Amino acid sequence: MSKTHYQYDVIVIGAGHAGTEAALTSARMGAKTALLTMNCDTIGQLSCNPAIGGVAKGQIVREIDALGGEMGKLIDATGIQFRMLNSGKGPAMWSPRAQADKKAYQFLMKLRVEEQENLTIRQEMVESLIIEGTPVPEGAPQPEPEDCPRITGVLVRGGAEYRAQAVIITTGTFLQAIMHTGEAKTKGGRAGEGTTGTMSDSFRELGFQLERFKTGTPARLNGRTIDYSQLEIQPGDENPQPFSFMTEKIEQEQIPCWLTATNQHVHDVIKANLHRAPMYSGQISSTGPRYCPSVEDKVVRFADKSSHQIFLEPEGRNTLEIYCNGISTSLPRDVQDEMVRSIAGLENAEIMRYGYAVEYDFAPPTQLFATLETKRVGGLYFAGQINGTTGYEEAAGQGLIAGVNAVLKIANKEPFILDRSQAYLGVLIDDLVTKGVDEPYRMFTSRAEYRLLLRQDNADRRLTPIGQQLGLADAERCAQFQQYETQIQTALTLLAKLRHQGNSLEEWLRRPEIEWPQLCEFSSELANVEMSERAKQQVQIEVKYSGYVKRQQQDIERQKKSLSLRIPVTFDYRAVPQLRNEAKDKFSRVKPADIAQAGRISGITPADLAILTLYLHEPGRMSQKTTGA
Amino acid sequence: MSKTHYQYDVIVIGAGHAGTEAALTSARMGAKTALLTMNCDTIGQLSCNPAIGGVAKGQIVREIDALGGEMGKLIDATGIQFRMLNSGKGPAMWSPRAQADKKAYQFLMKLRVEEQENLTIRQEMVESLIIEGTPVPEGAPQPEPEDCPRITGVLVRGGAEYRAQAVIITTGTFLQAIMHTGEAKTKGGRAGEGTTGTMSDSFRELGFQLERFKTGTPARLNGRTIDYSQLEIQPGDENPQPFSFMTEKIEQEQIPCWLTATNQHVHDVIKANLHRAPMYSGQISSTGPRYCPSVEDKVVRFADKSSHQIFLEPEGRNTLEIYCNGISTSLPRDVQDEMVRSIAGLENAEIMRYGYAVEYDFAPPTQLFATLETKRVGGLYFAGQINGTTGYEEAAGQGLIAGVNAVLKIANKEPFILDRSQAYLGVLIDDLVTKGVDEPYRMFTSRAEYRLLLRQDNADRRLTPIGQQLGLADAERCAQFQQYETQIQTALTLLAKLRHQGNSLEEWLRRPEIEWPQLCEFSSELANVEMSERAKQQVQIEVKYSGYVKRQQQDIERQKKSLSLRIPVTFDYRAVPQLRNEAKDKFSRVKPADIAQAGRISGITPADLAILTLYLHEPGRMSQKTTGA
Ligand SMILES: Cc1cc2nc3c(=O)[nH]c(=O)nc-3n(C[C@H](O)[C@H](O)[C@H](O)COP(=O)(O)OP(=O)(O)OC[C@H]3O[C@@H](n4cnc5c(N)ncnc54)[C@H](O)[C@@H]3O)c2cc1C
Ligand SMILES: Cc1cc2nc3c(=O)[nH]c(=O)nc-3n(C[C@H](O)[C@H](O)[C@H](O)COP(=O)(O)OP(=O)(O)OC[C@H]3O[C@@H](n4cnc5c(N)ncnc54)[C@H](O)[C@@H]3O)c2cc1C
Repeated sequence: MSKTHYQYDVIVIGAGHAGTEAALTSARMGAKTALLTMNCDTIGQLSCNPAIGGVAKGQIVREIDALGGEMGKLIDATGIQFRMLNSGKGPAMWSPRAQADKKAYQFLMKLRVEEQENLTIRQEMVESLIIEGTPVPEGAPQPEPEDCPRITGVLVRGGAEYRAQAVIITTGTFLQAIMHTGEAKTKGGRAGEGTTGTMSDSFRELGFQLERFKTGTPARLNGRTIDYSQLEIQPGDENPQPFSFMTEKIEQEQIPCWLTATNQHVHDVIKANLHRAPMYSGQISSTGPRYCPSVEDKVVRFADKSSHQIFLEPEGRNTLEIYCNGISTSLPRDVQDEMVRSIAGLENAEIMRYGYAVEYDFAPPTQLFATLETKRVGGLYFAGQINGTTGYEEAAGQGLIAGVNAVLKIANKEPFILDRSQAYLGVLIDDLVTKGVDEPYRMFTSRAEYRLLLRQDNADRRLTPIGQQLGLADAERCAQFQQYETQIQTALTLLAKLRHQGNSLEEWLRRPEIEWPQLCEFSSELANVEMSERAKQQVQIEVKYSGYVKRQQQDIERQKKSLSLRIPVTFDYRAVPQLRNEAKDKFSRVKPADIAQAGRISGITPADLAILTLYLHEPGRMSQKTTGA
Repeated sequence: MSKTHYQYDVIVIGAGHAGTEAALTSARMGAKTALLTMNCDTIGQLSCNPAIGGVAKGQIVREIDALGGEMGKLIDATGIQFRMLNSGKGPAMWSPRAQADKKAYQFLMKLRVEEQENLTIRQEMVESLIIEGTPVPEGAPQPEPEDCPRITGVLVRGGAEYRAQAVIITTGTFLQAIMHTGEAKTKGGRAGEGTTGTMSDSFRELGFQLERFKTGTPARLNGRTIDYSQLEIQPGDENPQPFSFMTEKIEQEQIPCWLTATNQHVHDVIKANLHRAPMYSGQISSTGPRYCPSVEDKVVRFADKSSHQIFLEPEGRNTLEIYCNGISTSLPRDVQDEMVRSIAGLENAEIMRYGYAVEYDFAPPTQLFATLETKRVGGLYFAGQINGTTGYEEAAGQGLIAGVNAVLKIANKEPFILDRSQAYLGVLIDDLVTKGVDEPYRMFTSRAEYRLLLRQDNADRRLTPIGQQLGLADAERCAQFQQYETQIQTALTLLAKLRHQGNSLEEWLRRPEIEWPQLCEFSSELANVEMSERAKQQVQIEVKYSGYVKRQQQDIERQKKSLSLRIPVTFDYRAVPQLRNEAKDKFSRVKPADIAQAGRISGITPADLAILTLYLHEPGRMSQKTTGA
């Protein structure tokens, strides 16, 4: 009996945040796509906090949306509370965040993948990869791309084969996962679910290096048992702003969150039990996210603080379950009980699910090209938490990029790589593949050197034209975007042309105190122009910030010129005798795409770069010299 | 370090259909209750078909509702299509059935348990039971109740203890569960979920006998890939009838189902692959539900039929997933693919989840008293599929009964046992504990000898007064019921009193062609009485059927008299020398509560009963005789 097999163009493994965006992207670009996942009921599940966006993450969601991805539309449809963070600061800092109705979000994502033409969604447990060619053993040097093995498919539990030219792995925290609550350990990538041990073996056999990270989640409470009268209420924004360019308005009612805090007694309880915390007892040795510490970490690291804030966030409209944002923990049950009971408003609160930490395998992302294709196996892509990142948004963004590149590769087209000056997604992937990660990677605005350009408000203008080229932005989005762009251009032209008291309206608008309504008083021509609120807002930001933006753009141009020199993948660094050995090693391992990327490799000096640049310009002369020396 | 422990009155293990009703019941009766379940996201999950009710099962739902249970209200709120089955036959046969929005049903049940006062719902994996006293080894004779060990709690993964005087086990298909699709086997009680191996060991250590059953489920399809134009539509009822007495009206829009059928080619494909079906290859040896056969069973057992109907049922309002009612199977993937592709309308249909069979441990229910307490361990109750039943309704009903009895027991009150003449639930439990099961047990109307009395329309009148006594029917239900009952009594009195053309209106109403509106034409006094539609309907049924019902009631009275003789639990059957050895054995094992139950034990003869009755009346004389002989 020959093995049952199914043929697709692209296969995506895992229907979390990375996997769903990858699969939707691939299918929308016309590839016959299969999305295989352990349990169809957990498609798009928000494993931890019920929220999308936030500082730098909100920008990523806007970018995913601008490219034609799904995340922004979903949260707009299922959000229960919307807030524009940093709205008191300049627009480069504005960051949309919304709480989701967790189950509504998840099941709407399930519906979206069900509806997608070209996409087969199927419940399967993937156990191993199938390749053509000889795997390169772990630790062995990276062979030339044409000597690498090529992926041909995957094997699922039960023995069937799914075949494709490209496979995208987005298995999240599920590789060799172990959950910890106090002294107790359980196998599984998410409470109540399983793990996938055999996948890690399959990666190792193909020569991939795997390392371990950990992450954690707080307890969930039954809202019926919380005394809200003691808590501070935190309402949503009065005028909630959508994430997606395609959402006209957030119509649904918003639900408040509630604020409370830890106190000295809570900290004492934690300190007295630190020896029972897996992170401190030595039971967990892997690294967790530093910026998103467990409450035991906070108490140790910020020993002088006697209180930490806790946001009590509803998990949905039709459940009383409450997420305790701020007290992620893997302390044992009894300590969690006592902690909770010592917090104002939670004296009688009942825990529905205890917090826990999860340790899992990830594949250090320096093993990837900037397309998210692995260097060791052609056609194999990694996206999401498997690359050592954390966060739904980071995962979703990688999924989209991997999806695009998988389709481009099998169509023999140029890869799609966003520059650091184009998008947070560019920064994210460049950081990953160039620098690697030594703790779970999340996005910060500080990681983006061009963050004045990479604003949430202009994500569409930066990326929708690209989404359109790729065939990802649908006709309706393209039409609306065209109209928006036209309105902006018309307004900008008018602002430059129209004058008031000797100055152009553009000059007027640059003054901090002047806003659109005043301009309209200055000029009825402007007042009569048909413009959406969004377009007006965009024009104002563009004009008010044009000074900063222009300077940043000039920087970019200058740098680009010198750094854009491309390096062939086959370039032999060891044949450049002037290079230091460390530089040879690092370049050979990372295989930077251009001088810019080469320069961002840790430990690389300007001198290394200069030699490399010279050699790339005139390889002949350099090697002659060497031979002659 | 002493083990973390939690103290409750009643603990329920597993939040399926039995567990949720058990826990709600216990909490509503005032017991401090914990509901421990593997995954809070699967509370109340409909594991197989997305429907509640049906022939005999619909009656059970009405009974659960009448007693104050939850199932009826939930399906009323989340149903997507309502049909009164057998509405062409007499009212004793009418059976409500509705399709549920699967996820809406499940998450509404989760909300209900969250909202319930006295009830702690918590995600825990229970691993073993804790008892006080010495367990009775498997096979050893049943000791006296006072010599039995007593349950004191359960141990969960991670080592915490939950203590209580009563524990109700409702773990469904999860004990030592193995799923089969063709040659492939996976551990787990439901696709994508785990199993609980250690629980079975714990039961065996306590001397419980476990046996194995199997059940199965069909493939789910992506509705986007179905050609509906080829299918016959099946709409819901025009005037959908609620399940719950508390639901005024079904307001939501109904969604149609679709009909297709297998054909000769499908049957040929199945026959050609029978050797790969786990049930036929010998891979599964346990018994499955005969009345709900897999499609491979149907093809073998009904070899002359060339077609079997398939109902394509939407799994919800916000999903395209479709349930294929009628083709449950554990054939391998490739055979399922070919089967589906050969069915009209499904030529291009994509399978989202493959069908599978699951084998699991159950505890033969003759090990239970009619309270659902186990005979071997005091305070330990079993309810649901663990007792060898199948079906959500059967499980929910047992859960409610076990919940009531657990609370009564710890309050030292009389047990609650429904008679076979009072409710389908009485029939269900009496069948289980008396006869045991040799295949998964589901309810049929034919199992109820008094089915003319046990109608869906009078479930409230039969049971709400009991629910009220037990403290389960809430104040609103009691008030509404009182009003309903008063209306009925008023109408019945009037019908007997008022006359038309010499006959009482009651006599008129007995004529098949006479309905309520005509009676109102006969008498303006009747027409002016304020009555709900439901009450009018009930009066009509009562009057039209009163002849049959009266005869059945007389039967019951006669039988009750002779059969109601109670037998002490401590009764020593072996001390009755005239009894045949087989009868001694069986009586000792079953420990019937009364002569009626004794008579229903398989293999017991009228002579055995006569001896037993005599001995119970005059134990002294019988044994004297013996001694003298
Ligand atoms: C306990 C916990 C706490 C977290 N805390 C935070 C936090 O505080 N802040 C934060 O930003 N992020 C947190 N995260 C991370 C966040 O959930 C992830 O970053 C994000 O979900 C990653 O998305 P992903 O698509 O890579 O993987 P996931 O969303 O995990 O999805 C992986 C998918 O792959 C499927 N899968 C796995 N193996 C297989 C297989 N072999 N075959 C088929 N399917 C498979 C799974 O079923 C799942 O659908 C936490 C995660 C967990 C589990
Ligand atoms: C594949 C399949 C096919 C079926 N087909 C049909 C059918 O065709 N017709 C029909 O009428 N019925 C069918 N059924 C049966 C129906 O689903 C059950 O009868 C019904 O769900 C039983 O209810 P329950 O409450 O006894 O168990 P379940 O609904 O199975 O609930 C058991 C609960 O216990 C929890 N649990 C288990 N072990 C533990 C533990 N150790 N610790 C904590 N929690 C635990 C589980 O998570 C779950 O929540 C099928 C079931 C399955 C799985």
